[in-house]
Amino acid sequence: MTDTASTRPERDDALALGVATRPGTGIDRRRFVARAASTVAGLAGASVALRSGAQATSDPAVQRALGEQLGGTGARSSHVELARVCGGGPDQAELACDIYSNNSKTPVQSLFGTVTPSDLHFERSHSGTPFIDPKVHRLLVHGLSAKPTVFSMDDLYRMPSATRMAFIECAGNGWNNWKEAKPELTAQDTHGLISTSEWTGVPLTFILDQVGAPKNATWMLAEGADGAGVDRSIPLDEAVLRDGMLAYAQNGEPLRPTNGYPLRLLLPGYEGNMNIKWLRRLKFGTEPFNTRWETDKYTDLMPDGKARKFTLVQDPGSVITTPSGSMQLDKGFVEIRGLAWSGYGRVARVDVSLDGGERWRPARIVGEALPQSQCRFVLPWEWTGQAALLQSRCIDERGHRQPTRDQIVSVQGTNPIYHYNAIQTWRVDPTGKVTNAYA
Amino acid sequence: MTDTASTRPERDDALALGVATRPGTGIDRRRFVARAASTVAGLAGASVALRSGAQATSDPAVQRALGEQLGGTGARSSHVELARVCGGGPDQAELACDIYSNNSKTPVQSLFGTVTPSDLHFERSHSGTPFIDPKVHRLLVHGLSAKPTVFSMDDLYRMPSATRMAFIECAGNGWNNWKEAKPELTAQDTHGLISTSEWTGVPLTFILDQVGAPKNATWMLAEGADGAGVDRSIPLDEAVLRDGMLAYAQNGEPLRPTNGYPLRLLLPGYEGNMNIKWLRRLKFGTEPFNTRWETDKYTDLMPDGKARKFTLVQDPGSVITTPSGSMQLDKGFVEIRGLAWSGYGRVARVDVSLDGGERWRPARIVGEALPQSQCRFVLPWEWTGQAALLQSRCIDERGHRQPTRDQIVSVQGTNPIYHYNAIQTWRVDPTGKVTNAYA
Repeated sequence: MTDTASTRPERDDALALGVATRPGTGIDRRRFVARAASTVAGLAGASVALRSGAQATSDPAVQRALGEQLGGTGARSSHVELARVCGGGPDQAELACDIYSNNSKTPVQSLFGTVTPSDLHFERSHSGTPFIDPKVHRLLVHGLSAKPTVFSMDDLYRMPSATRMAFIECAGNGWNNWKEAKPELTAQDTHGLISTSEWTGVPLTFILDQVGAPKNATWMLAEGADGAGVDRSIPLDEAVLRDGMLAYAQNGEPLRPTNGYPLRLLLPGYEGNMNIKWLRRLKFGTEPFNTRWETDKYTDLMPDGKARKFTLVQDPGSVITTPSGSMQLDKGFVEIRGLAWSGYGRVARVDVSLDGGERWRPARIVGEALPQSQCRFVLPWEWTGQAALLQSRCIDERGHRQPTRDQIVSVQGTNPIYHYNAIQTWRVDPTGKVTNAYA
Repeated sequence: MTDTASTRPERDDALALGVATRPGTGIDRRRFVARAASTVAGLAGASVALRSGAQATSDPAVQRALGEQLGGTGARSSHVELARVCGGGPDQAELACDIYSNNSKTPVQSLFGTVTPSDLHFERSHSGTPFIDPKVHRLLVHGLSAKPTVFSMDDLYRMPSATRMAFIECAGNGWNNWKEAKPELTAQDTHGLISTSEWTGVPLTFILDQVGAPKNATWMLAEGADGAGVDRSIPLDEAVLRDGMLAYAQNGEPLRPTNGYPLRLLLPGYEGNMNIKWLRRLKFGTEPFNTRWETDKYTDLMPDGKARKFTLVQDPGSVITTPSGSMQLDKGFVEIRGLAWSGYGRVARVDVSLDGGERWRPARIVGEALPQSQCRFVLPWEWTGQAALLQSRCIDERGHRQPTRDQIVSVQGTNPIYHYNAIQTWRVDPTGKVTNAYA
């Protein structure tokens, strides 16, 4: 072995013959406590009461049997029930999944960490999910003085690639309490229109360079190949040029059809509908194209009767996922868990209140908060049976802070359904029942 | 709206009535080029030749039709073929999936980014996959002076949680070229026994604190609930105490049964078999337990006839996934893509050689290299039809570097099958055929 390359670096040499290398002093219990304390942020010495009372370990029948044979893919356990639920806007809240123009929501209250499983990523479509053959699919880029160019998927797969984590959030996520909302709503009902994935694709700037993007292009139309032909005007601003991507992969694999297979636009931080799925066309312009999706559909009707257009960036948001609507709380230790995000960049801080916003304490952000990605936050809590109003609020690195419902209503009234990012409140009653507080 | 909370931060106010805020000068093409150059690391001005020659954009039939209705989960496109393939060690390389003690390998050559889809995470089992009811499953923690304690899954779900990215790598990953290997091997064949996920679970230190881990405990037995009852001795060293986790979730959802549902040990950086699946028992001790899995199975037979035991940490590794074995290369721009990792921490650098190791150039690591996680590396290449020998080598933050095959063989001979982390070589012949080079 040379000095510069090793197959078993130094630590293992001493272990090579099975000799334990730990100092004879063994483990200091105080160190465990100190480590646990640093891990759980102030919970040193707290005890989690065991509820099971079980004495047996695992199922003896399992240990005496051969298991299932290996296979090409590994399905979920039949004990795990995870599914999106379909819903609509305020006028169509009861819509079922057999409607074409609809959405289905991610079960955020049942998930862990920050990555959304690809098959549970929320979907929003205006004419169902098209079935596209990647060998037939093409992307046309044109407009102004650009050389019109058609790319096949094979062209795109060969190009330089980028990979990053990013959330996509429907502009309508969280709207429910803008109207008069029911107490039985779950976190999936109120905040299931956001999901986070690791995306891979071609940097938008690379495509623009390939076609010779015109100097005077300030906007770009992006159009989908679905029956509805959803198209949106994209401002070619700093953020779009820095982060925009023609994404063909999600969480390591090709996009799922419900998320745009074989190609979608990814614009981290911008409202979901701009991240055009089944992308077939980009066209340069010097002003917005004013498609129906931005003059009718995705506008915000203000109290004075005028509508805001092009409210494009997703404001800071957060939701407590445990405990949340329709859950039943048991007394004792509870780890309050939730998700926070901002279209403007990284989450800087998440505060949690147990009393409806009177007092706030900082939650712990698990790992590193990534730009335009959901982060997981946690706060240990000992629930002793008192009534509580649980809230979280996100503060991003640019200082934007989630507002209260009153603050939003005072400015925007209650007409719109898009970009309602108010603090969500879960009511805990003394029996442990958790409900949506219309506040 | 108050000064401290905003629903539409400053940027959007100017856009509120649809007024474009971009400076009238528009986009500077030189900026695109500069951006593209910084994105693709030295490819400024390079052109990716279009191969399709297609003039049509997308399929008109798709645009005239309604798509599929929304649903609870979104399946893969039928155009996407992704599956693990089953294989064995050198004496059982032709094993099919209908054998219980076997492995199935991740299709690394067909994936993107760093996250492995949960259903494609490699599997290795010694008696198939047990079907476990989480309501019945228990974890027993005992040994030495510890208070014997039984935890239900509900107990564990309530506890403080941790989330992190980590790879798990079978100790046998990459062994093929240690023996005389066939040229038609793919990257899945040679390096499909490693996968990366975002894991969530209870910090090991929290459990140790709960049961009162004895001061003199230096080792811990971890035992699975499968028929084989795989059990391994875990050194309670710094890395285990810092990073160890009782994981119940993977990529946002509960573990898949093939990955240990409902509970597995996660020991980032340690050989895969120590990350005990279907975890049912932890027992403290003052020395290794010398189970059959560490005296017979997972040892390294050296040239002098003695066997190394407890070679626990996964050394630095890497593999080029595009182009790789059995692929056909077309002339023109190629983005060389691969994965690199180290059990010792972060990947610091990845070098790529086009000539079998004569000259090396640094690849670009995409995003941030996380500790004990796979990172994606890329290097732009213009292939003009010359023969080439493609190699990558990983250098981690502690300075460990991947060795050549000769370096490993000079020390360890060719008896072992575990911990072969030599540089992988793909041969490109002038016709563009890519094969495994036995080197």
